[in-house]
Amino acid sequence: MSDLFHFEDFAPGQSFDLGSLTVSREEIIGFASEFDPQPFHLSEEAGSASLLGGLAASGWHTGSLVMRLLATGLLNKSAGRGSPGMTRLQWKHPVRPGDTLTARADVLTTRDLRSRPDLGIVTVRVTAANQTGTGVVEWENPILFAKREPAA
Amino acid sequence: MSDLFHFEDFAPGQSFDLGSLTVSREEIIGFASEFDPQPFHLSEEAGSASLLGGLAASGWHTGSLVMRLLATGLLNKSAGRGSPGMTRLQWKHPVRPGDTLTARADVLTTRDLRSRPDLGIVTVRVTAANQTGTGVVEWENPILFAKREPAA
Repeated sequence: MSDLFHFEDFAPGQSFDLGSLTVSREEIIGFASEFDPQPFHLSEEAGSASLLGGLAASGWHTGSLVMRLLATGLLNKSAGRGSPGMTRLQWKHPVRPGDTLTARADVLTTRDLRSRPDLGIVTVRVTAANQTGTGVVEWENPILFAKREPAA
Repeated sequence: MSDLFHFEDFAPGQSFDLGSLTVSREEIIGFASEFDPQPFHLSEEAGSASLLGGLAASGWHTGSLVMRLLATGLLNKSAGRGSPGMTRLQWKHPVRPGDTLTARADVLTTRDLRSRPDLGIVTVRVTAANQTGTGVVEWENPILFAKREPAA
């Protein structure tokens, strides 16, 4: 357990590389069919006729893909205890079939949790860019982490 | 097309019933395995040992399920054109296997889009509750809608 990141290991200004993944056309249409069946997420034709300018992933799909990178690249290497929410989520650019997304998490703030001396909250800004370096999504996320040494 | 909701049909104070769905244990574990493999979303044992007090859906899964209700219950009956982001998303209560979620969208504000006279932005608060009436998730979402009559 001692090699896991705990609350005390985080500080504002740190940046964590969360790795990369590639999304396929089948995954985009499959996710949208199940969770966000708006026409522009389901076919090239409807996508091309829309503001998105072509078939594009559901924003919830993009966020969920980046969540996978956050979980595998940071949270599952840490004493993460979940998150109460998110704010300022922006979908900045369409995600297309074949895009490779690379994500990172930047630590914004850390603070104790008054009600639970064994926990602290680390707020991170999660960002992801595609293979051309264009940002596709970002959000801010307060995340609970266990402390190595609970406060008195 | 004329029976679709357009920008002009929305006004602050309106509330749209988005319907209900039920989530299974298999769906919770399947989504988490693919998108949010933190232990407390993958097994009863790890869930019970966590702050969530039992196996609970990924917050991204809960949001994606409610997105499906938003798409089928409102956006696909409207001239919806997508959304640039979300804010103030709160995961308020764990979603458990077998839970039935009922969602609604309340219109907060409507405004013209200066750069596109054919579009307007409707900001809704999306909320979902479980079968006991306990709120599980909410967020605020500006959504683009086509106008029936583009502004001059």
